[in-house]
Amino acid sequence: MTFPWPTAGTPLTDVLTPMPVIDEDRLAANIARAQTYLSAQGKAFRPHIKTHKIPAVAQQQLDAGAIGINCQKVTEAQVFADAGFDDILITYNILGASRIAHLKALNEQVATLRVVADNPTTITGLAAAFTTGKPLIVLVECDTGAGRCGVQSPNDAVALAQQITDAKGLQFGGLLTYPAVGGAAAVEAFLQDTMARLSELGIDCPMRSNGGSPDLFSAHLVPSATEHRAGTYVYNDRSMVRAGECGVDDLAMHVLATVVSRPTPTRAVLDAGSKALTSDLLGFADHGEIVGLPGARITSLSEEHAVVDLTDCTGPLPVVGAQVHVIPNHTCVVSNLFDNMVFHRDGIVTRVEPVAARGTVW
Amino acid sequence: MTFPWPTAGTPLTDVLTPMPVIDEDRLAANIARAQTYLSAQGKAFRPHIKTHKIPAVAQQQLDAGAIGINCQKVTEAQVFADAGFDDILITYNILGASRIAHLKALNEQVATLRVVADNPTTITGLAAAFTTGKPLIVLVECDTGAGRCGVQSPNDAVALAQQITDAKGLQFGGLLTYPAVGGAAAVEAFLQDTMARLSELGIDCPMRSNGGSPDLFSAHLVPSATEHRAGTYVYNDRSMVRAGECGVDDLAMHVLATVVSRPTPTRAVLDAGSKALTSDLLGFADHGEIVGLPGARITSLSEEHAVVDLTDCTGPLPVVGAQVHVIPNHTCVVSNLFDNMVFHRDGIVTRVEPVAARGTVW
Repeated sequence: MTFPWPTAGTPLTDVLTPMPVIDEDRLAANIARAQTYLSAQGKAFRPHIKTHKIPAVAQQQLDAGAIGINCQKVTEAQVFADAGFDDILITYNILGASRIAHLKALNEQVATLRVVADNPTTITGLAAAFTTGKPLIVLVECDTGAGRCGVQSPNDAVALAQQITDAKGLQFGGLLTYPAVGGAAAVEAFLQDTMARLSELGIDCPMRSNGGSPDLFSAHLVPSATEHRAGTYVYNDRSMVRAGECGVDDLAMHVLATVVSRPTPTRAVLDAGSKALTSDLLGFADHGEIVGLPGARITSLSEEHAVVDLTDCTGPLPVVGAQVHVIPNHTCVVSNLFDNMVFHRDGIVTRVEPVAARGTVW
Repeated sequence: MTFPWPTAGTPLTDVLTPMPVIDEDRLAANIARAQTYLSAQGKAFRPHIKTHKIPAVAQQQLDAGAIGINCQKVTEAQVFADAGFDDILITYNILGASRIAHLKALNEQVATLRVVADNPTTITGLAAAFTTGKPLIVLVECDTGAGRCGVQSPNDAVALAQQITDAKGLQFGGLLTYPAVGGAAAVEAFLQDTMARLSELGIDCPMRSNGGSPDLFSAHLVPSATEHRAGTYVYNDRSMVRAGECGVDDLAMHVLATVVSRPTPTRAVLDAGSKALTSDLLGFADHGEIVGLPGARITSLSEEHAVVDLTDCTGPLPVVGAQVHVIPNHTCVVSNLFDNMVFHRDGIVTRVEPVAARGTVW
């Protein structure tokens, strides 16, 4: 069966739902605004492709001045390498013989490929495979407060930098962190301390990569970082509005949905459930916001339905068949559910791009 | 890029992660157990394909005795129609001219196609399109306490049944509910009341369809229902164990993951994040359970990482590179993220099936 994706020229009102759509002008403005700010701060910008997974959008980011891209998986990076991208950072511990074999082939294909490591096991695995051919650039991932991956101290960072430096086929590329939101001071302190220790050992630390969309416009608070990584900023979402990082007019992604049921005067049901919006709450108590329907609350999702409580709505309530625009809590996970992404300008479809790196598993 | 999905004969320990895998024997046992129970109760069984989205698995369900399948979308139904399934119920209000046009073509293709409606607008739309060709069978969806779609009273159900009956190209097929868990008494009362009123009007009500995996083995508590629908039971998940509907040995789906970081003595990080497990909590406070690691808690997910708190673990802790089996909170949404599903028997891959109806949007 061929799914009839909308073609250029189709009004959004004719697009079948549920369907995320991207506003071209807002997309371009988000790309320009972030790049302008980071360029003014003298920082390199490396967008994370996790949010869109679309080479054409990554190309827009590069055209605006980004130096390269950030991926999370070898297979994701492969999609972008095949599309011609030649500066790729994979911010992941790459483990296992077959995955490392893939990485090795990718390293020969891509002009500048970098990965990270936060433990000796990862480095030992990479070192065992990278004994011939082009050396692999490895950064040390540092936990500066987010509590996910990363070494816990500058001492541990230095030890891994030394292990990388000692491995014949590896090259120490620098330091990387994905910080806690608002953790600029901790990042700067960790970087400065580690850089000083590395300097004492004569180990060059060319790149210091900081990240996160919520901290994008505070990147200047981390002077030691040479680059910033961010994904969500490109589309933006409800969590970014709440964080004060953008306004509702900067939301490039809306999810189109249709009111499929009005079982009671205060209840509407939409055709966008957890298989369209995902269940990501990101701290919200509800599942997105309906544009132009203040007071409406998406109180629950099942797989193909959203239940909306209209109790506190003022103004006309939506009828069965009405199309609504939903602002998703989290845009990156919505992209990941759709094979194609529909773009529009002023409500008229401009293009449909395959979400090329969706479904890349490892 | 071709993703190297594992081939038959591969041990699960060699399967790259994150990856959901299905135990063939548990799958077959789940299918048999549900069918045996429902057959003994004299109820027809109509599995919901939302959980697996795989024609070959639906065929196993039919081979065991199921009478047909349940889909949620026209495009999903199309995938199964193209695979030869000839008794399909779409439990959704189908709205909009192009979607109804698709439904009309599907109705000519499929021997027995049924849809539901819970409002006059839906029926009016269907009636306007189904003026020629094979009549469409429409059931009335009833809200018997779940608070999602469905008419609120037997009176409203009868009014819609009358509207369907009055439409030349539509045929009233009966009543359908997706009840609140444990709501058997409310379902039975609603059905009995509505059937009595329909009988007074001389409107035949051949099918009464009840549903839900959590209520599958209480289907006998709704004697007026002629059939039961269920999806999750086929794989089962953590929510079904909690509900007492299955044991851990009935969990056909595990999500294979790898420990990619051990930043602290009490923290492990897995490579299965919200893009593998989803953020569905279904009432749980954490994001799945790790087999053989009691006390471990998956406290948070980001897109490609799970953070595991090992504080309360007893016994040996997993090292970087170790593969673990995660029991997902909710299996249906995990299926929906992967292009293929890997099956195994006793830890050896048996087959890889395309998740054919994944990515069907409307």
